[in-house]
Amino acid sequence: MSLADLTKLPGVTAEPVAVTQGYVFNHTMIRVKDLAVSLDFYTRVLGFVPVHRQDFAEAAFTIVYLVLRGDRSVIPDDDTERLAWALAQPGVLELTHNHGTENDANFAYHNGNSEPRGFGHLCVSVPDVKAACARFDSLGVPFQKRLEDGRMKHIAFIRDPDGYWIEILQPGRIDG
Amino acid sequence: MSLADLTKLPGVTAEPVAVTQGYVFNHTMIRVKDLAVSLDFYTRVLGFVPVHRQDFAEAAFTIVYLVLRGDRSVIPDDDTERLAWALAQPGVLELTHNHGTENDANFAYHNGNSEPRGFGHLCVSVPDVKAACARFDSLGVPFQKRLEDGRMKHIAFIRDPDGYWIEILQPGRIDG
Repeated sequence: MSLADLTKLPGVTAEPVAVTQGYVFNHTMIRVKDLAVSLDFYTRVLGFVPVHRQDFAEAAFTIVYLVLRGDRSVIPDDDTERLAWALAQPGVLELTHNHGTENDANFAYHNGNSEPRGFGHLCVSVPDVKAACARFDSLGVPFQKRLEDGRMKHIAFIRDPDGYWIEILQPGRIDG
Repeated sequence: MSLADLTKLPGVTAEPVAVTQGYVFNHTMIRVKDLAVSLDFYTRVLGFVPVHRQDFAEAAFTIVYLVLRGDRSVIPDDDTERLAWALAQPGVLELTHNHGTENDANFAYHNGNSEPRGFGHLCVSVPDVKAACARFDSLGVPFQKRLEDGRMKHIAFIRDPDGYWIEILQPGRIDG
């Protein structure tokens, strides 16, 4: 569908107002049971870098912002600058850890894909989807859908430590 | 916390492997009850632009990818190029509409912030958080938390048509 036709879909505003020009879709927040386990997964398996951590002692939770940037030299060194930078970037991941959940064997978060449904998944695009999936396999990452499963042979879904689905795809290999 | 200390948090890998350098945190997918209502909200209120739409007739659902870019001239005109471009960008929003939910008065998606919890929110950062919140108010957008509510006076949360929470903040005005 052409860009012109997309702007004529029911509901779509003809022209976003100028005041929204500086708006940035900055981050997505998910709750995680065990922060160390999730930090291992997002940094080692997917290459994210933590750029900010904040404890809320009284409310007993911690947040960590992570970015996925091949060139880490773009990340400011100064703490205040780095936080302002992170909040102005698109594609930031926020992990929220409510203290103590990691010690409860029966505790689990809901990934949104069984009832009651809502949130669906995150997606990480990669330069080579086959190589990426082979690597995830070698690392023991669980798959929700392998490339060869189902009809859509160009996408896979892996699961993070909380069971959230992460779509893996290669730009230019999706038919649309 | 310094960048060096952040990389020493429990679980964080010392140095992401080189193979993850081309990985991009591309999109977040949420299911929406009424696509036209959500497209109105995300384009008119927040300034998103739809860049790809795909119908899955047999499975009876439609997806729309949206980006939030002040400079719309960066969006490729050609459909194939635009899809490949969109899938290589950070900060894309995917809306999934399961056909027919809009006609069921009792149908509602789960926003992840009541039991069973999991996904928390999206965040849009803005150049002027007070002006943005005043505008949302004038547009009749419901607030989950106004700037003046609670302890964190520099952030607000609005709700999208499905009740998903969207944090609104201004980079540089968050203390960290």
